[in-house]
Amino acid sequence: MFLARVEGNVTATRKHPSFEGWRLVICQPISGKGEPEGSPQIAIDAHGAGLHQRVVISSDGAAARKAVGDDKSPVRWLVVGIVD
Amino acid sequence: MFLARVEGNVTATRKHPSFEGWRLVICQPISGKGEPEGSPQIAIDAHGAGLHQRVVISSDGAAARKAVGDDKSPVRWLVVGIVD
Amino acid sequence: MFLARVEGNVTATRKHPSFEGWRLVICQPISGKGEPEGSPQIAIDAHGAGLHQRVVISSDGAAARKAVGDDKSPVRWLVVGIVD
Amino acid sequence: MFLARVEGNVTATRKHPSFEGWRLVICQPISGKGEPEGSPQIAIDAHGAGLHQRVVISSDGAAARKAVGDDKSPVRWLVVGIVD
Amino acid sequence: MFLARVEGNVTATRKHPSFEGWRLVICQPISGKGEPEGSPQIAIDAHGAGLHQRVVISSDGAAARKAVGDDKSPVRWLVVGIVD
Repeated sequence: MFLARVEGNVTATRKHPSFEGWRLVICQPISGKGEPEGSPQIAIDAHGAGLHQRVVISSDGAAARKAVGDDKSPVRWLVVGIVD
Repeated sequence: MFLARVEGNVTATRKHPSFEGWRLVICQPISGKGEPEGSPQIAIDAHGAGLHQRVVISSDGAAARKAVGDDKSPVRWLVVGIVD
Repeated sequence: MFLARVEGNVTATRKHPSFEGWRLVICQPISGKGEPEGSPQIAIDAHGAGLHQRVVISSDGAAARKAVGDDKSPVRWLVVGIVD
Repeated sequence: MFLARVEGNVTATRKHPSFEGWRLVICQPISGKGEPEGSPQIAIDAHGAGLHQRVVISSDGAAARKAVGDDKSPVRWLVVGIVD
Repeated sequence: MFLARVEGNVTATRKHPSFEGWRLVICQPISGKGEPEGSPQIAIDAHGAGLHQRVVISSDGAAARKAVGDDKSPVRWLVVGIVD
């Protein structure tokens, strides 16, 4: 699980059908001081994270597949919390 | 899941039989601004991503094995969407 | 599993319900000499690790889900020991 | 899955018994242009990859365990194809 | 699986009970030429690897849990061979 900052959205017309209707956010992992660390991850977001907000993301494929309601979906990362 | 840019193809005559007939693309993870980040990944592609196109890739082994139709395949990364 | 130093806490009001009541700590992986290495991870902590303490963290999703008592939780990293 | 270049072999007398009889190759991940990227991985090889050859490696534990014929083996990376 | 050099031990009084009685070694991944690469990992060791010895480590959670005899253990990395 990473602390990350939302950097934007990704829109894709051609995609796996399980992603239909989900917001895909670009999440830049950051340190406790807010400095970027490592590569950005694409995550699905059900919490309504805004641009530049800090979030916690997790790479739990099983939980992400449950979220989109398709147990064969290739989804893996999801936003699990929005930092206060 | 990473945002990535397609950098080319890989062709391999000697390979695991489950890769037969699949296009293997070299995907360079990138930031929201398009800068390369981290190591390229090899992914299978069923969406027809073109050279230099931006894609979202996922490391879901189960979904990738389902895609190639071989539940013992060592495949892991797949293109899950093409960015508009 | 990484050797890490606790860098702080994360508080999130909007979050996955399985995180309710758990302490989320920012863990900076370190080398044997104490130098930072790689990106910080967010982990749940049941051992009461203090700020700047050295801990061992693990990315075992199954064990973390068992810890929070929710087998659908997207939790992944947990503190598994506090270094003497 | 990574594109990688074979950098050498590893020989180990004391090891997990499931590795017995398998060639362990040091695989340096590379970019599409052949530049080294990230840390080398140790993989088992059944395709007969030669020194400095380019290969595709995958971290599929289930497929690797099937390859060595021991479903409790700690093996994880394997060579899945040799680049033409 | 990484080629790594043993850099030391970790001792922890407060820890997950499944780690009781196991040696935890700090393993610095290295290249084929012996240069450090990436972040150190903490692994359990049943092969008796000495300080500065080169080992192969694997992140197989299932195999590691089997090794410690607790199928709920959060252990993940283990030494699978000592390089000659």
